Amino acid sequence: MIRAWVTHLRSSGKIAFAVLRDGTGICQSVFVKSQVPAEVWARFAELTTETSVEITGEARAEPRAPGGVEVGVTDLTVIGPSPSDYPIQPKEHGIDFLLDNRHFWLRSARQRAIAVIRNEVEQGIHDYFYERGFLRVDTPILTAAIGERSGLFATEYFEEGNAYLAQTGQLYGEAAAAAFGKIYTFGPTFRAEKSKTRRHLTEFWMIEPEVAWNDSNDNMRLQEDFVSYLVQRVLERRTTELAELERDVEKLRNIVPPFPRLNYTDAVALVQRKGSDTKWGDDLGAEDEALIVADYDKPVFVFNYPKEAKAFYMKENPDDPRTVLCDDLLAPEGYGEIIGGSQREDDYDKLVARLAEEGLQRDAYEWYLDLRRYGTFTHAGFGLGLERTVAWICGIQHVREVIAFPRLMHRLTP
Amino acid sequence: MIRAWVTHLRSSGKIAFAVLRDGTGICQSVFVKSQVPAEVWARFAELTTETSVEITGEARAEPRAPGGVEVGVTDLTVIGPSPSDYPIQPKEHGIDFLLDNRHFWLRSARQRAIAVIRNEVEQGIHDYFYERGFLRVDTPILTAAIGERSGLFATEYFEEGNAYLAQTGQLYGEAAAAAFGKIYTFGPTFRAEKSKTRRHLTEFWMIEPEVAWNDSNDNMRLQEDFVSYLVQRVLERRTTELAELERDVEKLRNIVPPFPRLNYTDAVALVQRKGSDTKWGDDLGAEDEALIVADYDKPVFVFNYPKEAKAFYMKENPDDPRTVLCDDLLAPEGYGEIIGGSQREDDYDKLVARLAEEGLQRDAYEWYLDLRRYGTFTHAGFGLGLERTVAWICGIQHVREVIAFPRLMHRLTP
Repeated sequence: MIRAWVTHLRSSGKIAFAVLRDGTGICQSVFVKSQVPAEVWARFAELTTETSVEITGEARAEPRAPGGVEVGVTDLTVIGPSPSDYPIQPKEHGIDFLLDNRHFWLRSARQRAIAVIRNEVEQGIHDYFYERGFLRVDTPILTAAIGERSGLFATEYFEEGNAYLAQTGQLYGEAAAAAFGKIYTFGPTFRAEKSKTRRHLTEFWMIEPEVAWNDSNDNMRLQEDFVSYLVQRVLERRTTELAELERDVEKLRNIVPPFPRLNYTDAVALVQRKGSDTKWGDDLGAEDEALIVADYDKPVFVFNYPKEAKAFYMKENPDDPRTVLCDDLLAPEGYGEIIGGSQREDDYDKLVARLAEEGLQRDAYEWYLDLRRYGTFTHAGFGLGLERTVAWICGIQHVREVIAFPRLMHRLTP
Repeated sequence: MIRAWVTHLRSSGKIAFAVLRDGTGICQSVFVKSQVPAEVWARFAELTTETSVEITGEARAEPRAPGGVEVGVTDLTVIGPSPSDYPIQPKEHGIDFLLDNRHFWLRSARQRAIAVIRNEVEQGIHDYFYERGFLRVDTPILTAAIGERSGLFATEYFEEGNAYLAQTGQLYGEAAAAAFGKIYTFGPTFRAEKSKTRRHLTEFWMIEPEVAWNDSNDNMRLQEDFVSYLVQRVLERRTTELAELERDVEKLRNIVPPFPRLNYTDAVALVQRKGSDTKWGDDLGAEDEALIVADYDKPVFVFNYPKEAKAFYMKENPDDPRTVLCDDLLAPEGYGEIIGGSQREDDYDKLVARLAEEGLQRDAYEWYLDLRRYGTFTHAGFGLGLERTVAWICGIQHVREVIAFPRLMHRLTP
């Protein structure tokens, strides 16, 4: 007995097929007119796409059937009819239409494959850190005025004034690393930015490990080991879904440590040689990133950016104080930055000076400064963008497809 | 070599001890004046609570030392001094002071034990569902006007009007269950309620499984199996931390299926016999819940509440249409409701009528109604409150201690 939804129907007049999906896979059911009661044959004729049914019959191996099994039907009950205007039809739909009907679009084989791979990546993240003794710490979404400054969603918080939706859990993660040694966060983060690129959502999930006593080099080693683990795990466990997405898995097999490392100065020279007019001191844009990764078949680290291009909390590079000890990890195949990481400034005076330079209100950061006042410590961490990582592994062009109900500048529903 | 923070110091003049913590545990280090260089002995005298240090020496078994190991020191480097006004001292502090200094308070052995158990519960949740073929689905935090109605945090969303922070991912979870069969959500949820009880946070984490083809009875079976798994896993793997919290573990050993089930009508009769003036039709308050669980040493299901006491999406009970097919799971020892669950109304017309009765704007629910329009299906799910569950397992009175940086009506920092 199977309870499922109808995805595909065909009939020759004497024999009829209904392909069913139950969320875990698909199964073909076969109705033979001469072998089923007349009312069952009549009920088959009522079936439409996405009708929910209960089917009774005998399962048997059938190499020609999708999934290798079919069910010879003896009984059929219609549970929920589905009017013939079911929005998603076997034709090309525009992206706005598909997103308006996201609750139905998720039922397609391709969207299911993406969801299964996302789930595998998420479980992989938890297993990776659990097995290595990291504590997961759930940092707050509602925060007072801290973190990055622009693009904040604000909400009134009782008599406390405005609260802002977190853009990062990092500062809290640093406090937790002082308490627990190795930690990671896993939660939604928010950007109220008017970006309409294929890499931006207003709400996306970030994973932010923070490790006491790690320096910038340890940090990059952790990143390459972690990312490689995730890719190899999906390759091992989600072959069917990668095939459904027609992903070129050879490109993924290659993702093993070490990843190439390019310091910022060399990266600028490289993109200049390729015609970019980026100058030393500028941040690297998406076009520069594409020029860099074109030379590699693995993710590439670009490390030690100029101070002014990066956030206040990154540690000054003792060998070149114009720069900070940080890295961006650029995915291959043009998927762009999937990680930003850094060793954190652990010198109290330098951090106070950086806050002032950035025009940030020091009083909001007193508890963060406390971590440098009392037993300061070398530490480093990074943020991995979940949707960008899953999009890359899936080979999907736009991050809007790798989260169940994407939030974009012009999209708040369904 | 150990890099860690000093938690405790004592010296006899010839031999001195520094107890160190590194986030994974504690370790005693021993300085013998006659055996270390004079400058190392002098540096010991500079040490204060929460100074960060690098210590070199020889580890050896020492049954009298905390953790059973001590390090005979040969060298000591002070990395980060800690002024003598370190806020947390070995004395009683008020709760407001501790919460103001949450970034330091987390460093205590008791807070670490809670964080470790929370981490174990979270990993247990992911493992439980992963091993049983559920897909994790990350439902949106920023939502248009849906879900429960009062106590919403609002934020301006570009030109789309207000967005509201999700109080539940359930409605999205139902759409995902139609696509993937068995799903669960795991994320923060928000209540802008002026509650100041020991069971309320404005931001807390919820786990919401939703299963296609489960009825209310299947739903309760899943709940008791799931909760029992989590408790038994913590008992097996986190003995040390439960001991640190002085948890009575005998009370936890008992948490195995089945859990007692009491229908609402019987529950009202029970609390009335015990002196409550609750009448049939009322929701059960915290005092009634306490009267009910007093008779049991396991979590107790109270099921099939009156329709008016519960949310619009719960399925009408065919055997008594005054009631709905739902359950609350009440934790023992007075920890209150940790789960609310229900079979969902799958009849389109009844759901439309319930929306109207509740005065909810139907147009915001069109996509949700679509799930009943096209191939409706029996389904059920529940929401488990993470902090309440962890508080119960830890034996902690107030949920504010079981999340790293709690958000309360009057608390938005640190």
